[in-house]
Amino acid sequence: MTIIPNGVTAPKGFRASGIHCGIRKNKSKKDLALIIADCECSAAAVYTTNRVKAAPIFITRHHLESGTARAILANSGNANACAPNGEENALRMCHALAEHSDINVKDIIVNSTGVIGQPLPIDCIETAMPDLVSELSFMGSDDAANAIMTTDTLKKEVAVSFELDGKEVRIGAIAKGSGMIHPNMATMLAFVTTDCDITPTMLQRALSCSVKASYNRISIDGDTSTNDMTAILASGLAGNIRIITENENFVIFQRALDFINLQLAKLIAKDGEGATRLVCCKVIGATDEASAEKLSMSVTSSSLTKAAMFGTDANWGRVLCAMGYSGVEFNPELVDVSFESAAGNILVCQNGQGLPFDEKTAKEILSQDEVTILCDMKSGTATVETYGCDLTYDYVKINGDYRT
Amino acid sequence: MTIIPNGVTAPKGFRASGIHCGIRKNKSKKDLALIIADCECSAAAVYTTNRVKAAPIFITRHHLESGTARAILANSGNANACAPNGEENALRMCHALAEHSDINVKDIIVNSTGVIGQPLPIDCIETAMPDLVSELSFMGSDDAANAIMTTDTLKKEVAVSFELDGKEVRIGAIAKGSGMIHPNMATMLAFVTTDCDITPTMLQRALSCSVKASYNRISIDGDTSTNDMTAILASGLAGNIRIITENENFVIFQRALDFINLQLAKLIAKDGEGATRLVCCKVIGATDEASAEKLSMSVTSSSLTKAAMFGTDANWGRVLCAMGYSGVEFNPELVDVSFESAAGNILVCQNGQGLPFDEKTAKEILSQDEVTILCDMKSGTATVETYGCDLTYDYVKINGDYRT
Repeated sequence: MTIIPNGVTAPKGFRASGIHCGIRKNKSKKDLALIIADCECSAAAVYTTNRVKAAPIFITRHHLESGTARAILANSGNANACAPNGEENALRMCHALAEHSDINVKDIIVNSTGVIGQPLPIDCIETAMPDLVSELSFMGSDDAANAIMTTDTLKKEVAVSFELDGKEVRIGAIAKGSGMIHPNMATMLAFVTTDCDITPTMLQRALSCSVKASYNRISIDGDTSTNDMTAILASGLAGNIRIITENENFVIFQRALDFINLQLAKLIAKDGEGATRLVCCKVIGATDEASAEKLSMSVTSSSLTKAAMFGTDANWGRVLCAMGYSGVEFNPELVDVSFESAAGNILVCQNGQGLPFDEKTAKEILSQDEVTILCDMKSGTATVETYGCDLTYDYVKINGDYRT
Repeated sequence: MTIIPNGVTAPKGFRASGIHCGIRKNKSKKDLALIIADCECSAAAVYTTNRVKAAPIFITRHHLESGTARAILANSGNANACAPNGEENALRMCHALAEHSDINVKDIIVNSTGVIGQPLPIDCIETAMPDLVSELSFMGSDDAANAIMTTDTLKKEVAVSFELDGKEVRIGAIAKGSGMIHPNMATMLAFVTTDCDITPTMLQRALSCSVKASYNRISIDGDTSTNDMTAILASGLAGNIRIITENENFVIFQRALDFINLQLAKLIAKDGEGATRLVCCKVIGATDEASAEKLSMSVTSSSLTKAAMFGTDANWGRVLCAMGYSGVEFNPELVDVSFESAAGNILVCQNGQGLPFDEKTAKEILSQDEVTILCDMKSGTATVETYGCDLTYDYVKINGDYRT
């Protein structure tokens, strides 16, 4: 497997574009994105589990009942959630695209991201549609990735190439993240394309499985959004033998898809609102995977631990404490905790009790861009890693006055 | 019922003291507190549900098996959690007190609060015990309240007087809160005294019930501590007819105790680390109390909502969103949201959709010391209010470098 450029336009048969249509006041910020396939694709998606769902989620779910689609259309700057005429406006987005292309309304995956509760400026979107379509390009992934960003500070884009049946197969993806990132779900937008030939059923299976071990294992602030979605289109143009069962090729495809989603999930965690570093919590030696995941997520979600990581404070007591209220039964007197990064690693707690350690070394380790909190439960063989970020002044600043 | 001064020393038969014993470096900060009763008391307590429990929790639980006690001994500056010789040191605290008073070791409720994982400086405590005992006074509540504070900025103390059988009965209490305040439990320290005559069983029943509607309905940061405890001593010296069943007097006592605990809970929420205001979420019209509590806690625990409250941003979309991921089933299209405070009230969302509203008025309402988010589910008659605070730069500052 090789990492390649061009994100969602890396696989065969996909073009993309991103433009400024006027939802945002800042004219240099793109706010409308489009990805289209040259042919009908197998399609699959995973949606937010929030009880309050944005209007486009309902439209997309309806459109994907067929298991096929050809386009992904998304705007930033307005979530079209809890807003008047939500479903009507989401549908109007689809109709505008259908009008200016050869794509059927029912083949369109639509989504919105941004502020909740304000009317979607549908006129801007409709007016801009001819431009959006005319900008479509085989190099357009970058523009589309930029157009879906909200408070993200980094564009999130990745693509890989691998072989199936001697044919080159590609998977590419773009994502947006930042605030409101928490399971369960794909709690952000991630749009994936591939030229792999695979049935809708197998594609959904691969995506659902992949989401569990990637987007569902990141936490920025414990809030889950109304709009979140991961969607994938598979054009089949790579020419591999169509994947119709969980055969060896499916496993290879699954691994590549997992890699893509995990990379994006980490990028999202690292770029959490106001974050200065990626904080991973790796729980090993747990009795089972579900327990390991709960323990690990409890640590990456703990505000106190996140603030300590911002302060490069080796406060392992908060780590133990966060595991303690996770709801998982474990013996605290068995637990070891250490901190790891590119600068080294340091054991700070053994069998549930503090060890004397060099504060300067610990601070150096915690000052790196990516830090791992390693917790050994010594109770079994299950291992799970989850991803989060530190809690900073800037998180408060960004979210104290986002809407106005 | 009348509010009276003197906290835990307001009820008959209680003395208290608080001194600096040397656990903290700052000599002007008291770090050791004592409350004792002149006679054997009915006693009850509620403990943290964290799987990782501090050593003194185990000692206290053991001592309270008899249902009686005479003293509460607590230090701040060190949690005696995940620390070497934890239980031995907690016991040594009790033995030191027994040695310098007429109180049995088994009649002592002991606790610690502060940093996790560092050895308790037991020598300081033992050396200071004669001073702590000699400082005991019928006016000592203030000193004890100061001695249990950690990052609290305000002393938390309240007392009330009411009548049972024509006799004056008093309940007094002190508490500490700040970070790590989250259910379920009495997630802080609260020490309550009363001269009411009541059996241990009825006292435990009243306390457990009271904790559910007070300390278990506050959230500062979602973290639950290893040390948290609410304990109550009842001296019986008021001379009322001993409460042995859930009779009318029990109900009156329960109401007074609920008032005490709710006042302290609100003080704790308002003084959450770095908080600038108390944020209440009142859910009305819910199908049942459990749902109402979940919905309400989800709002007061939401980092995004808390940051918006700091920024006086009427971002009701985050309120709806937080209810959406609470796990409670409800129809978003029925929900009304309004903001209330001493400056007025404003309806911002009706039937799940935003209303046009005056931003300046909303900002004025949200700028007050105490703000209520009112959510009408229009699905039933259950009402629950929970308490939290805003998320501020200072929360991050306090917790970014608490330990070092």
